[in-house]
Amino acid sequence: MEFKLSKEFIEQIEGLIAEQNERELLEVLKDIHFADIAELMNELRGSEAGYIFKILDSEVSSEILLELDEEVREKILNNLSAKEIAEELDEMDTDDAVDIISELPEEMKDEVISELEDFEHAKDIVELLRYDENTAGGLMAKELVKVNENWNILTCVVEMRKQAEHVSRVHSIYVVDDEDRLKGRLSLKDLLTSSTTTHIKDVYIPKVDFVKVDTKDTEVARIMQKYDLEAIPVVDETGRLVGRITIDDIVDVIKEEADRDYQMAAGISQDVEADDSIWELTKARLPWLILALTGSFIAVKVSSGFGDAMDKFPTLFFFTPLIAAMAGNVGVQSSAIIVQGLANNSITGSLWRRLAKEMLLSLFNSLILAAILLFGTHFLLDLDYSVAATIGIALISVMILASLIGTFIPITLNKYGVDPALATGPFITTSNDIFGILIYFTIAKYILGF
Amino acid sequence: MEFKLSKEFIEQIEGLIAEQNERELLEVLKDIHFADIAELMNELRGSEAGYIFKILDSEVSSEILLELDEEVREKILNNLSAKEIAEELDEMDTDDAVDIISELPEEMKDEVISELEDFEHAKDIVELLRYDENTAGGLMAKELVKVNENWNILTCVVEMRKQAEHVSRVHSIYVVDDEDRLKGRLSLKDLLTSSTTTHIKDVYIPKVDFVKVDTKDTEVARIMQKYDLEAIPVVDETGRLVGRITIDDIVDVIKEEADRDYQMAAGISQDVEADDSIWELTKARLPWLILALTGSFIAVKVSSGFGDAMDKFPTLFFFTPLIAAMAGNVGVQSSAIIVQGLANNSITGSLWRRLAKEMLLSLFNSLILAAILLFGTHFLLDLDYSVAATIGIALISVMILASLIGTFIPITLNKYGVDPALATGPFITTSNDIFGILIYFTIAKYILGF
Repeated sequence: MEFKLSKEFIEQIEGLIAEQNERELLEVLKDIHFADIAELMNELRGSEAGYIFKILDSEVSSEILLELDEEVREKILNNLSAKEIAEELDEMDTDDAVDIISELPEEMKDEVISELEDFEHAKDIVELLRYDENTAGGLMAKELVKVNENWNILTCVVEMRKQAEHVSRVHSIYVVDDEDRLKGRLSLKDLLTSSTTTHIKDVYIPKVDFVKVDTKDTEVARIMQKYDLEAIPVVDETGRLVGRITIDDIVDVIKEEADRDYQMAAGISQDVEADDSIWELTKARLPWLILALTGSFIAVKVSSGFGDAMDKFPTLFFFTPLIAAMAGNVGVQSSAIIVQGLANNSITGSLWRRLAKEMLLSLFNSLILAAILLFGTHFLLDLDYSVAATIGIALISVMILASLIGTFIPITLNKYGVDPALATGPFITTSNDIFGILIYFTIAKYILGF
Repeated sequence: MEFKLSKEFIEQIEGLIAEQNERELLEVLKDIHFADIAELMNELRGSEAGYIFKILDSEVSSEILLELDEEVREKILNNLSAKEIAEELDEMDTDDAVDIISELPEEMKDEVISELEDFEHAKDIVELLRYDENTAGGLMAKELVKVNENWNILTCVVEMRKQAEHVSRVHSIYVVDDEDRLKGRLSLKDLLTSSTTTHIKDVYIPKVDFVKVDTKDTEVARIMQKYDLEAIPVVDETGRLVGRITIDDIVDVIKEEADRDYQMAAGISQDVEADDSIWELTKARLPWLILALTGSFIAVKVSSGFGDAMDKFPTLFFFTPLIAAMAGNVGVQSSAIIVQGLANNSITGSLWRRLAKEMLLSLFNSLILAAILLFGTHFLLDLDYSVAATIGIALISVMILASLIGTFIPITLNKYGVDPALATGPFITTSNDIFGILIYFTIAKYILGF
């Protein structure tokens, strides 16, 4: 059943656009899902994508608009008048419309809003625009089905039919009082299985999970996952039902959060994709590289401070990259587990117990590694026993310290409200390089006495 | 509204368990969501958690069972008879029941299945057990609402009322023919807004997305995200409707995939959490460290091969960790972007164009970094011009090579069906270390002529 975007298909479409063969184009695109048309348009030149967009029905084009890559969407919106954009927005759910409006230039926003045909829709959009985009208010949509606790099932069904016209997917039927305050929910099952004269008051479920408009989006995601919810109602400060968030919006939040943590760990500071411009990619990557370079340069200064030992113990200097690399690897392992644990809210208990455990773990691991290393050097490199002992002891000390740093920093950052994911990737690797090399030579100096 | 698990609360519960005060315990737990009770039980000792489990109603306990940490669940199941486990499973949806059965010891499985009370339920569970857990068949549940295309709306509502008894959440109403082959779906809206005598045939939507039983779970996740689906029907080889997958199961798949990629990048090879035992954590971490150690040891061998240059150009050896670190950082950046792009299916186009772009990008970045480095060394270290030039040229060459490796390896692994995430973390860092150091000294040898 699945659509695969082939080179041949793209060429066929490009040909039809060149011929301005509108009828044939519409015929080809008729049976293709809007998400697939969006994928196709992302591959076309701006003017070609714009042509397709204009010939499509606004019911389809509004869906496509939401699926396009941001750059392509921007190009298309730039070629539309405020009235044309408003027509697209009239087809969308309020939360989607708000996402599109937020991307428009300031001066365009008001103009587009004033062109919206449906006044209720416009009012809802204006309300949603007020909320911070990373809160429940910024995620929610106004489209929902609600019934008054004083109605009976029959009134309820009649009212729901009206409301359902504006709601593409009915998740839950929310029950409110006369003041619009959220009281609970009505299950579809109860609706289908109760007699028509039953009062809502007598069948609704008074327990309902909800979030407030100012709850953070990641917190909403956590709650919806924990309680296995597919939709959650949003209430304002007075408890009035003002919107609902659905799981598909939350999937995006979860995905974005995971992608962001992953990119941070890899030293990429903005949300970039492989297809972005070299300039965008540089902006995301270069700052971390400069940080890493600076840190490594400090490490160079540290080891050159011990340069006098080079005559007597040259081997020590062959091993600095190994010590630095192991410090980096252990540090990243430790911090990654903590960062992931913090993201999943599973880091509880005292910091000291956690550090003690991490210390034990890395002591255990580093002993094994030191044994392997000494065994290897014994057969593959001709090393003095005291130098070998130095390297072994240094490896153990450096690994323990690196794992403690990798545990301590993310927990501490998180405690002070800083994103713990900062403490992964180049940052932790580089600081571990510096400490590692410093400890290594200090131990060497002490044991070998140079 | 949200429940926070406090130390005081845990102590209160432990006290009540010690007193065996069943009535008071049930009173306290009555208003707490089962996901929160599970969270509480995860913090208690096994015997305490078992006590709570036994006093709870099986409708609640079966939900709790699904939310518990695996170790806690295992302890509780070990203390239950086959008949008691079967009672819990009778309360669950088929997909959840299958997840629990899969965790049981072989000999227990058949016994539990034979104790299931509802024969239809048992038959469904046995069928689901046959599918690989990483396919659509392994994810799907048998609970769904389906109607025959030949019915009218009224029959439909009557039949749905019956079916809804067994289905906790109605997502979509699927339409099948007399052979049970999937024909399309009926929207809730159409159901609510059509007259009762209308035939399903005349109102159903013939276009419906579906997957086959053997579609991979990550592919199902991709399709459901792309087409914004909250549920997707699953058909067998003959097109018969055999189950449905809901978005909450997919959220788990997405989360697991992202977590796994992140852990791979950090050099953690199994799904571990900060709270796992030192032994579990060692199994996940040590193999990567051994790999990294081996790689670094090779790098040591490489640099010691150029040991003769140490007398004349000692500074070169201070810089090896810097060169190795930068190669590692760039390689991880490149591979992370590719791995993420592959996971999101956004890596298209030719490999060569991608490599060319990556080369341009890292040439650009490395020129800037080399300039910074030379500027820094000029003021902070007293370097010979030819040595400085060597280090600058080596930095540029090493960074370009590292970024090409970081791009090439994941794409190639993916092409041959190997998980590209393997090419992140210690693997890429270590191989870049070796190549980096080799290139560095080769360039130095050529320029400085030792």
